[in-house]
Amino acid sequence: MIEKVRVAVVGVGNNTSALVQGISFYRDTGSLVGIHRPEISGLGVGDIDVVAAFAISDAKVGKDLHEAIFLPPNNFPRLAAELPPSGVTVQRGLVDSTEIERVAHALKGAEVLLYSAPSGRPQTAQAYAEAALTAGVAFVNTTSDAVAREPSWLRRFEEAGLPLIGDDLASQFGTSVLHHTLLRLLEERGLTLVSSYQVNLGGTEDFRNLVENSNTKKQSKLNALGSDKVQLAPLGYLPQLGSEKIAHLNIEAKGWGETAVSLDVRLKVHDPSGAAGVNIDLIRIAATALRAGRGGYPAEAATLLKSPPGTAV
Amino acid sequence: MIEKVRVAVVGVGNNTSALVQGISFYRDTGSLVGIHRPEISGLGVGDIDVVAAFAISDAKVGKDLHEAIFLPPNNFPRLAAELPPSGVTVQRGLVDSTEIERVAHALKGAEVLLYSAPSGRPQTAQAYAEAALTAGVAFVNTTSDAVAREPSWLRRFEEAGLPLIGDDLASQFGTSVLHHTLLRLLEERGLTLVSSYQVNLGGTEDFRNLVENSNTKKQSKLNALGSDKVQLAPLGYLPQLGSEKIAHLNIEAKGWGETAVSLDVRLKVHDPSGAAGVNIDLIRIAATALRAGRGGYPAEAATLLKSPPGTAV
Amino acid sequence: MIEKVRVAVVGVGNNTSALVQGISFYRDTGSLVGIHRPEISGLGVGDIDVVAAFAISDAKVGKDLHEAIFLPPNNFPRLAAELPPSGVTVQRGLVDSTEIERVAHALKGAEVLLYSAPSGRPQTAQAYAEAALTAGVAFVNTTSDAVAREPSWLRRFEEAGLPLIGDDLASQFGTSVLHHTLLRLLEERGLTLVSSYQVNLGGTEDFRNLVENSNTKKQSKLNALGSDKVQLAPLGYLPQLGSEKIAHLNIEAKGWGETAVSLDVRLKVHDPSGAAGVNIDLIRIAATALRAGRGGYPAEAATLLKSPPGTAV
Amino acid sequence: MIEKVRVAVVGVGNNTSALVQGISFYRDTGSLVGIHRPEISGLGVGDIDVVAAFAISDAKVGKDLHEAIFLPPNNFPRLAAELPPSGVTVQRGLVDSTEIERVAHALKGAEVLLYSAPSGRPQTAQAYAEAALTAGVAFVNTTSDAVAREPSWLRRFEEAGLPLIGDDLASQFGTSVLHHTLLRLLEERGLTLVSSYQVNLGGTEDFRNLVENSNTKKQSKLNALGSDKVQLAPLGYLPQLGSEKIAHLNIEAKGWGETAVSLDVRLKVHDPSGAAGVNIDLIRIAATALRAGRGGYPAEAATLLKSPPGTAV
Repeated sequence: MIEKVRVAVVGVGNNTSALVQGISFYRDTGSLVGIHRPEISGLGVGDIDVVAAFAISDAKVGKDLHEAIFLPPNNFPRLAAELPPSGVTVQRGLVDSTEIERVAHALKGAEVLLYSAPSGRPQTAQAYAEAALTAGVAFVNTTSDAVAREPSWLRRFEEAGLPLIGDDLASQFGTSVLHHTLLRLLEERGLTLVSSYQVNLGGTEDFRNLVENSNTKKQSKLNALGSDKVQLAPLGYLPQLGSEKIAHLNIEAKGWGETAVSLDVRLKVHDPSGAAGVNIDLIRIAATALRAGRGGYPAEAATLLKSPPGTAV
Repeated sequence: MIEKVRVAVVGVGNNTSALVQGISFYRDTGSLVGIHRPEISGLGVGDIDVVAAFAISDAKVGKDLHEAIFLPPNNFPRLAAELPPSGVTVQRGLVDSTEIERVAHALKGAEVLLYSAPSGRPQTAQAYAEAALTAGVAFVNTTSDAVAREPSWLRRFEEAGLPLIGDDLASQFGTSVLHHTLLRLLEERGLTLVSSYQVNLGGTEDFRNLVENSNTKKQSKLNALGSDKVQLAPLGYLPQLGSEKIAHLNIEAKGWGETAVSLDVRLKVHDPSGAAGVNIDLIRIAATALRAGRGGYPAEAATLLKSPPGTAV
Repeated sequence: MIEKVRVAVVGVGNNTSALVQGISFYRDTGSLVGIHRPEISGLGVGDIDVVAAFAISDAKVGKDLHEAIFLPPNNFPRLAAELPPSGVTVQRGLVDSTEIERVAHALKGAEVLLYSAPSGRPQTAQAYAEAALTAGVAFVNTTSDAVAREPSWLRRFEEAGLPLIGDDLASQFGTSVLHHTLLRLLEERGLTLVSSYQVNLGGTEDFRNLVENSNTKKQSKLNALGSDKVQLAPLGYLPQLGSEKIAHLNIEAKGWGETAVSLDVRLKVHDPSGAAGVNIDLIRIAATALRAGRGGYPAEAATLLKSPPGTAV
Repeated sequence: MIEKVRVAVVGVGNNTSALVQGISFYRDTGSLVGIHRPEISGLGVGDIDVVAAFAISDAKVGKDLHEAIFLPPNNFPRLAAELPPSGVTVQRGLVDSTEIERVAHALKGAEVLLYSAPSGRPQTAQAYAEAALTAGVAFVNTTSDAVAREPSWLRRFEEAGLPLIGDDLASQFGTSVLHHTLLRLLEERGLTLVSSYQVNLGGTEDFRNLVENSNTKKQSKLNALGSDKVQLAPLGYLPQLGSEKIAHLNIEAKGWGETAVSLDVRLKVHDPSGAAGVNIDLIRIAATALRAGRGGYPAEAATLLKSPPGTAV
């Protein structure tokens, strides 16, 4: 039987709730519904143990992980999974670089550090990357803050023989991939794009954060869509949506004889599920690379991120 | 300068209107907007001359082609193209196999016969195929009636060294390819399909015909989507739509933790444009194969049809 | 304390399931969510007892009502209500007029007969009306079959001093009222209607019935919308929808300077809830009229039906 | 024959373009399409002459009105109306209160001053109101800035025997009235609102202005919708939309048995048409009141504004 991956997580928000609950749900039920890759190098989606967790909210620090994931502002729904106490107590996350040593110490025994805090705090992201390097742990950056796409960081992980994955998680199924796919389809069929827009509405704390720091995020999205005819309308924070995200997409194009083609799409999806569905893969890819002694960027992760190495910082 | 392709068309409906107007529009304007393949074996979209046309409507027979394409029930809009008299007088189409000789005679000088009549009259389709064989002309069947997917017909064209293309034109951009693409995207990302539907509304004579003969068409569509979780609601004929088609698609799926993902799409497109945008390629593929002496099914056409050879009849 | 209304129901389909479950749900919870009129003449929504039920399905006849409402093809969801055995055994419904006596006998003790069978069987509807007259019971026809709008029937109920309500229940919130309201709004604001369509998709047995007998229903709907610019596309039966109905509405209009105004609407609603939410009012109106000795058509019911007396038969 | 209304306009943006073009269009064509009130006290929509216009853009000042309405950033489309030079030269608008005298002088001969500048400059609005008082001209404030709902201003116009109309034009057909109507319909039918949102996207300079000064506007909108369950997502400025506005509305409610009802709406409308279609009425109401010697707020205007007198300032 395969050895379970030992993961430490930074951030005990909705994405961690979806990840932790989902692992238990799939272990309990044996269901394969909604799973992208049932196995990666022999690791199933249940073959993961969270061994440490860091948060900065006073309410969450000191609580058992299985209790903390349900505390506000988290609002991801409760899945049909048994969640007895996990035995993992949420530790205080670092707020500046003086605490790197403490975190590195707490990472002993972990194989992968999943950095799943809100985007928009690059120094914090890099401090955890430093802690991972110190502790000899693979690092996965799911935020849009630049770590893996910074050549200097990638070089240090390569030299240390440690995997580094990032930046900016591409959701298992979200607005970006949908919009991308539709635009590509039009192009493949020879239609000419006239204009397109995308409106994103969400109700999570992460979303509120994005709204407030929307420039970083937008830049990353535009990287992904890559046309000046595609516009992102401002993000809207609507708490009533809970952990659901709603996106409205419109595409106007021209076909044969320059006649009009219109496409309007409404997508409704739980954002934290989209994150967890990819994090489960990134963790397994990172662990596999670590166990095989492969440092640096694992090629298998490339399509799972919006701003991988090589993207403009 | 390349020799223009000499095409005969059966059916002077909206699709022929879009094709004929579009060829002039692109010749006049030099625009490349909405064109899938600017060139096929050196043939541009303007390098086509319609040299004969067949219709069964008394109103259209005997008229100049450039006049006949605007007669009711045609309702494709008038594009911004100059359309002086074409010099091609619409001839009476055949209604039974006794007239194959007459049609074959009228095809002399043509290279390609584009069969673009309404679907649902397999014997008529096959009579024109027979006339094409007799006249030594390539045959393109855009209807859902079985010709090219009938092994016996394919063999006869192969033996005669004549290209045969069909059946059931896949629109340049229509509901089928869109639905297909979205379902495939879900699958690629590891989501699990729960249910899906597709509603198609149109206002053309072709559409009215489909509604009345909907079984043939539906079967062909289901071939294309290939899942028992996908349902086609009855087609709706709404004359107010003119030559526009509106499709409503819904997809319900499950992602990580079996949480719900919903996708609702509305597509608005001119059906005849979608047909003309592919017919322009099929004609050029057929002419190229004929000029190269290649009989039978040209492989380049395979992805442009819904029921190519090998599909169940 | 007010005396509860004693109701007999014809039809043990989804609408009856929604009605019966809803009465228990509101009695248990005291909730007022989703209730149109908390009280009618002192009668709350819980002040109703079903005392007899008729069905023609072999599977349902002989079963307790609280069991029968969950048998296929019923697919209305199970509400959060306690449903111990009701003590009411489903009786065999009549199939021709020779059984009127038997049904009339079984109605003894009831005050109101709610006719909630599928539309499209006018003779059956009228046979139950006859039984109600014989038994001295008020009659409520929720189907589109003509009873209350037949002057001869109305006269007979008036003469008997019995209330008669019908025809064709207007759902508490359905496509018709929504479409109507939007068209009226446009008119009030001075916009000019260009065209409009409505597509209805459903997954209930009632819906399948409507699809198969769509002419009767369509006529009734067109009565309701009253413009030749408004078109109903064919109804679509999609079993995957269960008891949900989805409607797609489109309205195209012109405003100042003849510029375009477009409105696209998607409505998702449980059809049986829409029926039950009005049936609960019709029952109380009928009982109130009966108890007050008022025969014929109770004016309070007029706005709750699509084809009240005075509509073309 | 009735004497034409002599109007001065402040602001030569899209709304003025739609108004001026529309008046000519309806005079030329005799069309009644899209007109709310063909006549108000004998005044048709063509019975209006613009006699003065004020703008602050250097590009527009000094130009003939019929030229200035097509200058950027204006992007309302060109209607099918003849527009020979108007003879009205655009004058420089005031930027502070020292210029009130000059403007008042330029208003001589006008009956109504239509204040149609961008919202968000209350002092400018009030300076023009002062000029109207000085010149003895009726004042119509279409912006959300407080004038008519300031009791002190209303008193001054009453005392001067001059009509004062405002504030914040309710579009002939826009998101607010649509959202309002749908919420009221739900309430009338007894459904219980769970949550609702509204997203507005536009491409005009006015819209860009709104986005930048969104708080004032939002407050006015929330006045109009009046429920804490209804949320407005941030406005999105998408220049590609030109003078079209697109709104996405969602309403989630509960019906009988607390089952879900969902409503999704997409509205596409030319904002300037919606403004012009109401301005044409406000002008005629103001002129009628002025001619009848009625000062203060004309009751007929009450329903045409979002923040009439009595609304919180």
